[in-house]
Amino acid sequence: MNCDHSRIKEACGVFGIYTSSEEQAANSIYYGLSSLQHRGQESCGIAVCDTCGSEGNLNVHRGMGLVHEVFDDNILHSLTGNLGVGHVRYSTTGETSLQNAQPLVLNYVKGTLALAHNGNLVNTEELRAGLTRTGAIFQTTTDSEVIAHLIARERIHTHSVEEAILRAASKIKGAYGLIIASPRKLIGVRDPLGLKPLCLGKRGSAYVLSSESCALTAIGATFIRDIRPGEIITITRQGISSNLELCQKKHAHCIFEYIYFARLDSTLDGVSVYEARLRGGAALAKAYPTEADLVTGVPDSGLAAAQGYAEASGIPFGLAFYKNSYVGRTFIKPTQKERENSVRLKLHVLEHAVKGKNIVLVDDSIVRGTTIAGLIRHLKQAGALKVHVRISSPPFLYPCYFGTDIPSNQQLLASSHSVDDICRIIGADSLGYMKVEDLPDTVNGLPLCKACFDNHYPMDIPNQNS
Amino acid sequence: MNCDHSRIKEACGVFGIYTSSEEQAANSIYYGLSSLQHRGQESCGIAVCDTCGSEGNLNVHRGMGLVHEVFDDNILHSLTGNLGVGHVRYSTTGETSLQNAQPLVLNYVKGTLALAHNGNLVNTEELRAGLTRTGAIFQTTTDSEVIAHLIARERIHTHSVEEAILRAASKIKGAYGLIIASPRKLIGVRDPLGLKPLCLGKRGSAYVLSSESCALTAIGATFIRDIRPGEIITITRQGISSNLELCQKKHAHCIFEYIYFARLDSTLDGVSVYEARLRGGAALAKAYPTEADLVTGVPDSGLAAAQGYAEASGIPFGLAFYKNSYVGRTFIKPTQKERENSVRLKLHVLEHAVKGKNIVLVDDSIVRGTTIAGLIRHLKQAGALKVHVRISSPPFLYPCYFGTDIPSNQQLLASSHSVDDICRIIGADSLGYMKVEDLPDTVNGLPLCKACFDNHYPMDIPNQNS
Amino acid sequence: MNCDHSRIKEACGVFGIYTSSEEQAANSIYYGLSSLQHRGQESCGIAVCDTCGSEGNLNVHRGMGLVHEVFDDNILHSLTGNLGVGHVRYSTTGETSLQNAQPLVLNYVKGTLALAHNGNLVNTEELRAGLTRTGAIFQTTTDSEVIAHLIARERIHTHSVEEAILRAASKIKGAYGLIIASPRKLIGVRDPLGLKPLCLGKRGSAYVLSSESCALTAIGATFIRDIRPGEIITITRQGISSNLELCQKKHAHCIFEYIYFARLDSTLDGVSVYEARLRGGAALAKAYPTEADLVTGVPDSGLAAAQGYAEASGIPFGLAFYKNSYVGRTFIKPTQKERENSVRLKLHVLEHAVKGKNIVLVDDSIVRGTTIAGLIRHLKQAGALKVHVRISSPPFLYPCYFGTDIPSNQQLLASSHSVDDICRIIGADSLGYMKVEDLPDTVNGLPLCKACFDNHYPMDIPNQNS
Amino acid sequence: MNCDHSRIKEACGVFGIYTSSEEQAANSIYYGLSSLQHRGQESCGIAVCDTCGSEGNLNVHRGMGLVHEVFDDNILHSLTGNLGVGHVRYSTTGETSLQNAQPLVLNYVKGTLALAHNGNLVNTEELRAGLTRTGAIFQTTTDSEVIAHLIARERIHTHSVEEAILRAASKIKGAYGLIIASPRKLIGVRDPLGLKPLCLGKRGSAYVLSSESCALTAIGATFIRDIRPGEIITITRQGISSNLELCQKKHAHCIFEYIYFARLDSTLDGVSVYEARLRGGAALAKAYPTEADLVTGVPDSGLAAAQGYAEASGIPFGLAFYKNSYVGRTFIKPTQKERENSVRLKLHVLEHAVKGKNIVLVDDSIVRGTTIAGLIRHLKQAGALKVHVRISSPPFLYPCYFGTDIPSNQQLLASSHSVDDICRIIGADSLGYMKVEDLPDTVNGLPLCKACFDNHYPMDIPNQNS
Repeated sequence: MNCDHSRIKEACGVFGIYTSSEEQAANSIYYGLSSLQHRGQESCGIAVCDTCGSEGNLNVHRGMGLVHEVFDDNILHSLTGNLGVGHVRYSTTGETSLQNAQPLVLNYVKGTLALAHNGNLVNTEELRAGLTRTGAIFQTTTDSEVIAHLIARERIHTHSVEEAILRAASKIKGAYGLIIASPRKLIGVRDPLGLKPLCLGKRGSAYVLSSESCALTAIGATFIRDIRPGEIITITRQGISSNLELCQKKHAHCIFEYIYFARLDSTLDGVSVYEARLRGGAALAKAYPTEADLVTGVPDSGLAAAQGYAEASGIPFGLAFYKNSYVGRTFIKPTQKERENSVRLKLHVLEHAVKGKNIVLVDDSIVRGTTIAGLIRHLKQAGALKVHVRISSPPFLYPCYFGTDIPSNQQLLASSHSVDDICRIIGADSLGYMKVEDLPDTVNGLPLCKACFDNHYPMDIPNQNS
Repeated sequence: MNCDHSRIKEACGVFGIYTSSEEQAANSIYYGLSSLQHRGQESCGIAVCDTCGSEGNLNVHRGMGLVHEVFDDNILHSLTGNLGVGHVRYSTTGETSLQNAQPLVLNYVKGTLALAHNGNLVNTEELRAGLTRTGAIFQTTTDSEVIAHLIARERIHTHSVEEAILRAASKIKGAYGLIIASPRKLIGVRDPLGLKPLCLGKRGSAYVLSSESCALTAIGATFIRDIRPGEIITITRQGISSNLELCQKKHAHCIFEYIYFARLDSTLDGVSVYEARLRGGAALAKAYPTEADLVTGVPDSGLAAAQGYAEASGIPFGLAFYKNSYVGRTFIKPTQKERENSVRLKLHVLEHAVKGKNIVLVDDSIVRGTTIAGLIRHLKQAGALKVHVRISSPPFLYPCYFGTDIPSNQQLLASSHSVDDICRIIGADSLGYMKVEDLPDTVNGLPLCKACFDNHYPMDIPNQNS
Repeated sequence: MNCDHSRIKEACGVFGIYTSSEEQAANSIYYGLSSLQHRGQESCGIAVCDTCGSEGNLNVHRGMGLVHEVFDDNILHSLTGNLGVGHVRYSTTGETSLQNAQPLVLNYVKGTLALAHNGNLVNTEELRAGLTRTGAIFQTTTDSEVIAHLIARERIHTHSVEEAILRAASKIKGAYGLIIASPRKLIGVRDPLGLKPLCLGKRGSAYVLSSESCALTAIGATFIRDIRPGEIITITRQGISSNLELCQKKHAHCIFEYIYFARLDSTLDGVSVYEARLRGGAALAKAYPTEADLVTGVPDSGLAAAQGYAEASGIPFGLAFYKNSYVGRTFIKPTQKERENSVRLKLHVLEHAVKGKNIVLVDDSIVRGTTIAGLIRHLKQAGALKVHVRISSPPFLYPCYFGTDIPSNQQLLASSHSVDDICRIIGADSLGYMKVEDLPDTVNGLPLCKACFDNHYPMDIPNQNS
Repeated sequence: MNCDHSRIKEACGVFGIYTSSEEQAANSIYYGLSSLQHRGQESCGIAVCDTCGSEGNLNVHRGMGLVHEVFDDNILHSLTGNLGVGHVRYSTTGETSLQNAQPLVLNYVKGTLALAHNGNLVNTEELRAGLTRTGAIFQTTTDSEVIAHLIARERIHTHSVEEAILRAASKIKGAYGLIIASPRKLIGVRDPLGLKPLCLGKRGSAYVLSSESCALTAIGATFIRDIRPGEIITITRQGISSNLELCQKKHAHCIFEYIYFARLDSTLDGVSVYEARLRGGAALAKAYPTEADLVTGVPDSGLAAAQGYAEASGIPFGLAFYKNSYVGRTFIKPTQKERENSVRLKLHVLEHAVKGKNIVLVDDSIVRGTTIAGLIRHLKQAGALKVHVRISSPPFLYPCYFGTDIPSNQQLLASSHSVDDICRIIGADSLGYMKVEDLPDTVNGLPLCKACFDNHYPMDIPNQNS
């Protein structure tokens, strides 16, 4: 993913494992979370417990930063236990506090519980108001704490934590991939529309839950299946059981997982992200053919679609940029004057690859347009004759209520400009956005939520202030 | 570049600027060094002075780590001055101490001097012994301190620092790209064989010296020319002057700069690194043709040669790996057992890109072979039918005395195994190394040092213990 | 206070201020907490809000470590607002987690609330069980979270936060000095027995609440009065009001505040800590007279009592030790072997002050006896003839349930040895402990809790597991 | 020592040990340096080597900060060897760079050498100019590097390092306590006037050199004797030998070591620092008698002299301040406005100790007068009737060239004001400075350098710019 601050942000990734008593869950979660790091870079955490211990205590460590920054050998060793859950987070609300880092660990009437949540509820305010009216206190601003309260209250009258989770899940509306560690159980929940991904894997006798399949591969687990939308899956020492009461016919998988969020080597709900992007590129080639000498992508997010465009158009696919991977988060940004003097941070044009050529440049999205405008300018300074831009998503026009951090309208170029205007603003010779009607084919006809492009939300959205 | 610890290391990169009195040299050096970061990641430093100030003092800051880790806004602001020099370093000797970080700043008979040096001398021991026999003391183990002593001693009898540098340069043997900041002058020196690169650029009225041209582009400077092998170039307020007394006909540019060290967007001695690698890939295609469905490279070091192979062979070029760029230096390495359980750190196979395909996999070198063996195994686990490996350099067989950190013989697979053996060990279906005789054509016939491949050293090498 | 890890620990200190809208509460709280640092060194925090702002949000920063380690200029500046509360904490339970750092900030039915609590409840378990049985979740292990839940639940049915606090306070049993910041009010609560101290001060138009008067002086505030045991004091823009419904006749102030916890320059409930210790020393002189040349105290905790002993006995008071104040928390402890070789960490005998003399050595308590035994050995090695030890507290024999971290019986020398035995073990020539019956006079007859010495608890203690 | 930034600073402390091959020198040096920390808090370092190893390499670690901040367990363990030298430093020149941290470790004609130096040379500029004129380069601004150069040059023509040191020492003028570790020898050198202290101790078969005796006691070594002024002492495996060629009759020990620098538990040149300060206090009592109820000292620097005043005058000695030892270097200073509002950082008046009393307040020196003025103001606010100030040193009137960092004239109150003026400025009721003629008796007639008070320098001072 590109480090550009004007890009779209995903909220979270979740990962859980129930392994044999000889193995440490924390190590696998560490590697699993590292493979989900693209889903959230602001904070992360791991909570574990020992299913064979008598106390049922959950140990947790959370911190601000990347997985390899927050955890070191000593901390991992201190997290003993064979069952656990982890979380990576990107704050969508601008509150980047440690307080909101997950997993949330809490004591309630039946002991302890750890929750890790990916997604966004749409009835948070209503639920929160109902809870505080009956005496609840909140120490974070996360949806997860709302879910925790609901579970704790339902647990008073129910016979099992799964039953309490089922009742809580029936009250929440929105997008969620949820993993809960109760001292002797690992429980996964997916929202009934399947907006957020969640899948199941197996390594030896261990079961694994993960936002994406790439994290299964990373730790050597085999992909078993996606969790069904609405399914509550419970993993215990005895094995797996499922509750399907909340399952429904209507599904709406987030298209943006395929276009942008998910990792190229993941497969979600049966569709390979890599292949979806290849097909997206091919659709662009069909919709917006052009004559050119080279098809290239903005590293790394546009490369797969560029390859798809190249294959479909017959124009050669090749490199056009060097990416400086040493530019880290603490890098000092050039001033406006320095930028005009061409201080280039991460992406550097390969002059000899582009000089005298007509180029198709593919990327996954345009937010403010400044990044792509800079790349086009650099390509032309290096001698490129024409630069035809192809974007593998339609223009963002409508807000997402399900956890995708699409910048506000003011920042979105597409919300106030026509495609022709944008083409001129960014300095491209032609510009083609993916057509909304081409999206379903890129994911083999999977039912989609593409409301941010077409305003068709898969559920009613209550009035939300935030 | 790949983070694999079994890869070849470059020693250093140097960057200097003499800008107008209104501009701060430190900022440009910061961005310049960031663009040379691939040449050294262990320590870095910047020394600056103000040519209009009366004192002629050099301020310096050095530290362990990457440029953006060592410098922050406060430190950059404290480095006031319009003339300066910077350095990035990878220790080739295993001594990773701060003491050895450069630039070296010293007081001598005529005031202060800052030195930044890329390369390795071959008569260091002899020079050092001569110096200590006449009372010199050494506080580092760098060649740069030897050069500094020579300059200081010559300066007693000479009329200018350039003359002292000339006399010092006539005593040292080996490879060097050297930048010296004397309070009112910026001086560049390149070894007579041209083993190490050094070039000149211009931005407005400012002159820039850099190990590679990519750092010129990064700060918006225009490439003027390469420093001639043996040239001593002096930049003052009055402009540029050169001393060519040490220039000679025989040149021997390091081939490994093109194969590996230099950045893809640099041009050294008139040859584009990108094009040299494309031609290298093409030469491999000609020397080792094969039938395949996909040509791919090990990201990022093998990608350009892979594209060259693809273009020459007509086999499509495409992606086969996802590279996790969030895996940093503090990442906890998986245990042997975890590795067997397939914990994969940085490179992840795109299953849908390789399944059922015959693949040509291109990389720039094989050191211990463990990395490529792992990639081949993962490709086959993902369904690749055949994996044909092509390496864009010949096997390393002889030591480098000029600053390239080639691992010792015990670690080098090629030093004790035949190509067939290596092919079997890494699990490839075929293996082809670049032929030594094909190297000159990849760089348009430029005179080369390729002693590490063919044992023909461009100068006598004195007995060296270290 | 001495850094000896075998010493008694206090749990917490609290500080709050309601100042005019032109001043920043955070700065005063910073200096106030620094003056209460002796009450807790493990974590600290500040929560503030702006009473003139419309939102009523509380900003909080908490961290592990000392006040000057956790807060810097940037953090203090970010804590804007004229009303706030701060806390310093030493964990009495061994859980030194950031999660438990205070103030606790929470959202509840009527907005936000920040709580800072000094002391320990004795019916926590019962209250917690009742709360979870009705759906509460707990994210910390602090008593403060229990209090917060009680307030939140009472607030549903009450007309003001003070009323909710009153109802909550009537349910909790134990020791507490509590400061609560509700966006427009600063509220202080003291337990009905007055076990924990809390006082009121004024600086200009600002009101201040603090565990000890020394923190008032530190910020230039004038001491007004102690909060009455059982009083709930509310500070608003309109001024001060009090609720005295929970006040009762029986009081029991913690004697250990005078002997050890409180700072020498504080006055609690009308009694100067300095004078109480002088009188304690005088009582020791009367109870255990001896012939000697010098009276000295263990720096810094025994100095005032030593001066009192000297004044009462007529034996000169003088220095006998140098205290190395550079020995910080990260100091590497000497090994057992090094200790035998006399590696001395903090306190060093002044040989010329003690040689050939008979000495009275005063300290405030003996826990394991190792520290005082070492000092006696060093005094004798330096030539002291006799060392008579006088301890300004009686032996600890009974547990404290109110927040004092008295080590467990196994660690307490006094719990298993007679005074004669202890005298022999520590190598003293005579040993005298303060008599329980002399304690009231040291505090001018103030009603005391001295249960840790005499087993007379001022309230029933429910069965507690932790 | 007080943290006031307007106080006098000492430059350095040195410590060396040659122990048996089974013991680690680094650990003892760590504890030794901690006991010398009052002599320098800016940077520190340890260099060690193994006398039984064949290579004779010196390992060194240096850093900015206190001993316990710069060294941790891992670093100490990495410093293997039984011979070593350490250094604590306070920069007197304002250059607080890591580059100047000591020990200086260097390679020269005969191998390696580590130097640690306390003091200041007066002919540095002349020596440095001579060295650079013959080709020397300097990488620090320390006198130690000058000494190192001299030794290296002399070593060419001499038979042993001791002989080279002797010749170097005969060229340097000024104050020095010097410890040199040559791989098989530990060598101590003291300036011929004895301006700087250096002493010898023994622990088992190990010999120890230290700036002060307190560091011997700290590690369990026995004090043997002071190094004679001008003596060069060499410790080898065979034992001790001395060269006395530079010894002379005239001695001039720095009086300020007794008044201020040295630790209260040290004995220098046969005089106990504690006793010297007691006698100083007694001399003040005799010179400036007064009626008062209490004698107290500014903690901690004025306490011993206060006790001396009390004993001589018969007025009781007692506490008047609480010192907050939690106020560290990162403490945020109060603004001017906050200070007026009485924000007090470190020293807090014990109101009940001073109210209604006439007080004698003793301190060791007055620099700018702001600290003592604040204390007097606070004492009076707390009810003190009269405050008579007694200073245990005469007024500073002349510069020190030997390493004491006396603030410049502008900052020194005494340089521009009469005693009466100063008394009025600081708000005292009377003020008495120690008389210069009383100083010799405080140190039992030891020959002194007291030039900063009386302008009688014990040697000619060359023109010095810095």
